[in-house]
Amino acid sequence: MFVPRGFSYAGVHCRIKRKRKDLGIIFSEVPCTAAGVFTTNVVKAAPVIYDMEILGKNPSGIRAITVNSGVANACTGEQGMINARRMAEKTAKELNIPVESVLVSSTGVIGVQLPMEKVESGIEEAVKNLSKDPVPFAEAIMTTDTKIKIHSKKVTIEGKEITVLGIAKGSGMIHPNMATMLSFITTDANVSEDALKKLLKISVDDSYNMIDVDGDTSTNDMVIILANGLAGNAPIQEETDGFWKLYEAVHEVNQVLAEKIVEDGEGATKVIEVEVRNAPDRNSARLIARAIVSSNLVKTAIYGEDANWGRVIAAAGYSGAQFDPDRLDLFFESAAGRIKVAENGQGVDFDEDTAKKILSEKKVKIILDMKQGKELARAWGCDLTEKYVEINGRYRT
Amino acid sequence: MFVPRGFSYAGVHCRIKRKRKDLGIIFSEVPCTAAGVFTTNVVKAAPVIYDMEILGKNPSGIRAITVNSGVANACTGEQGMINARRMAEKTAKELNIPVESVLVSSTGVIGVQLPMEKVESGIEEAVKNLSKDPVPFAEAIMTTDTKIKIHSKKVTIEGKEITVLGIAKGSGMIHPNMATMLSFITTDANVSEDALKKLLKISVDDSYNMIDVDGDTSTNDMVIILANGLAGNAPIQEETDGFWKLYEAVHEVNQVLAEKIVEDGEGATKVIEVEVRNAPDRNSARLIARAIVSSNLVKTAIYGEDANWGRVIAAAGYSGAQFDPDRLDLFFESAAGRIKVAENGQGVDFDEDTAKKILSEKKVKIILDMKQGKELARAWGCDLTEKYVEINGRYRT
Repeated sequence: MFVPRGFSYAGVHCRIKRKRKDLGIIFSEVPCTAAGVFTTNVVKAAPVIYDMEILGKNPSGIRAITVNSGVANACTGEQGMINARRMAEKTAKELNIPVESVLVSSTGVIGVQLPMEKVESGIEEAVKNLSKDPVPFAEAIMTTDTKIKIHSKKVTIEGKEITVLGIAKGSGMIHPNMATMLSFITTDANVSEDALKKLLKISVDDSYNMIDVDGDTSTNDMVIILANGLAGNAPIQEETDGFWKLYEAVHEVNQVLAEKIVEDGEGATKVIEVEVRNAPDRNSARLIARAIVSSNLVKTAIYGEDANWGRVIAAAGYSGAQFDPDRLDLFFESAAGRIKVAENGQGVDFDEDTAKKILSEKKVKIILDMKQGKELARAWGCDLTEKYVEINGRYRT
Repeated sequence: MFVPRGFSYAGVHCRIKRKRKDLGIIFSEVPCTAAGVFTTNVVKAAPVIYDMEILGKNPSGIRAITVNSGVANACTGEQGMINARRMAEKTAKELNIPVESVLVSSTGVIGVQLPMEKVESGIEEAVKNLSKDPVPFAEAIMTTDTKIKIHSKKVTIEGKEITVLGIAKGSGMIHPNMATMLSFITTDANVSEDALKKLLKISVDDSYNMIDVDGDTSTNDMVIILANGLAGNAPIQEETDGFWKLYEAVHEVNQVLAEKIVEDGEGATKVIEVEVRNAPDRNSARLIARAIVSSNLVKTAIYGEDANWGRVIAAAGYSGAQFDPDRLDLFFESAAGRIKVAENGQGVDFDEDTAKKILSEKKVKIILDMKQGKELARAWGCDLTEKYVEINGRYRT
């Protein structure tokens, strides 16, 4: 794991949750250029509203992010907004930085007010625990997650070594509806505000947005990137070579974190990747990939290791994309091999045992070759199991 | 049960399926005015394509509908189109009527060709069995259905007694993705072609289209209405008193059949009705009602009898509708009572035991009062259970 210069991290237990860590802070020695992508849900949690305002006012002066888990601070009205601000104020005070340099984030139960005494004592403790180790922070933001999610990448731009480190939470089993997904990317790159915004937007579209299927986002989703410039490179501008190099590093981090989110979840037994090839246009490719990966009937078929290709074709058909169904070829693929199950929109004779063997792997890929264009899209999801129903039916999340 | 004048029905077993009836015919003594609403899926089964063409050419001369279950005749290419036509030709021959007066319909496994010898012998037998009893037909169109679905209604228009009888198939458990839904309405009303089309469209929008959530439709969905005019009334024209009287009768039939579809399904334990009140506009009301009823997290919460209102609010938020979340009031209601769980977008203190008792009923209603307009929409669905996963994961449908 590579940690970018000038950042420190902490995660503590302040008793919002019964046993596990529930409050984390990321701190930068110097002000960061920052960009964020937030939930498109009309119902936005207080910290989302708060951060959107701060980033609008102070996109080049961010120093810290404080995150709690256990309580989402969503559907909490005016008191929720007051509490989000108090989280920022307390963090600013303890770190001796301006209030408007602090972002806040929450994940957990909807409709409950934050226990502010616990949160404030947690902030005090976390500030004392700041270190170069991002693991406690990664632990502190978990809710239904079973594993921490961290990925880092180094890249050299104009002779300067730049590090990108991402920390995320989210668990695949609660797709497609409202798995709260948080991701915090820290980098020591020096990058212009516009370039950072653009780079984050492009990357999120092809990573987190292709797992958070159906456009369904929780009230709290956010992806934040902080760039503190300590790598010492000249400021990276939009669409330059340096831009695309940094993009690749950031995108690898986002991509890996997105896959970790899909893989996680007690309810899931398999990861499903859908690849739509040779689509007439990019939007159609994306719509179709997401419709397939979010279909309950496809998810249950994959869980049952049943090569029920009709469900895949039908999901493509109701995705909202317009296309010629009589050209579609369909394949199932995994470590155990690859099999063609439909050609030109019709079923082909295939060996059910081979198909079963391919589908019995932990990672299964569904490849839809549309043969009517050049665009490609990928989406990721997991299967739907009895365990999913049990977990989501029995516990308040 | 009331049966409209001049119609006869049959259902037989011709061995497409192993044991149960699998081929049905509806026959009218005289030509009918007909209208249809078909799946919006880009991937349309052969009988859907065939019927759309016939109804375009001959909307006032329909005499019969032949339906098989067991094989969907979808993703079957040119041979599928040939087989759909052969079904119509055989029916026409046996009934001694023109080919272009016959509609066809199929439901069952995707990607398999119809066994035409069996289908043709079934048509011969069914024609011999035509009677005033619609039950064998209702049985013949079932697939995963556990119950037949029939509803009839009488109405007097300008002194003439008019009967409407509907027969449907579809099972709630396989929502929201591709529950094939077929519904055939027969009436002895005399009604103009345009009036019949309009009346069917309005009714379907508020009945079947509010259970077939997310715009997801199977490759085979269709609703057909046949009106043979034998009631002897003067032709009903659009938007007249007679039009609305007939509409009410047809809509009651469609509404009851839609609810029967939702109630059916081995995987479902509860029926969920969502009522969105005082919405800013009709489209928003519909989007929100459907988003809530199709949310896996709402479905599992209702199954678990957990008053997890945050999931309902979050689903409204990602529905695509724009609204003010700070005005929403939310209630759960059933035969056991009614409880307010959120007010002005925030949770209120409520008694968890009372909520649990309300949610323990077989029919549960979720009422979202948006307090920002006058529009209303209702949607129906069922809960998501371990049994659903078991059924859909283990068997090819």
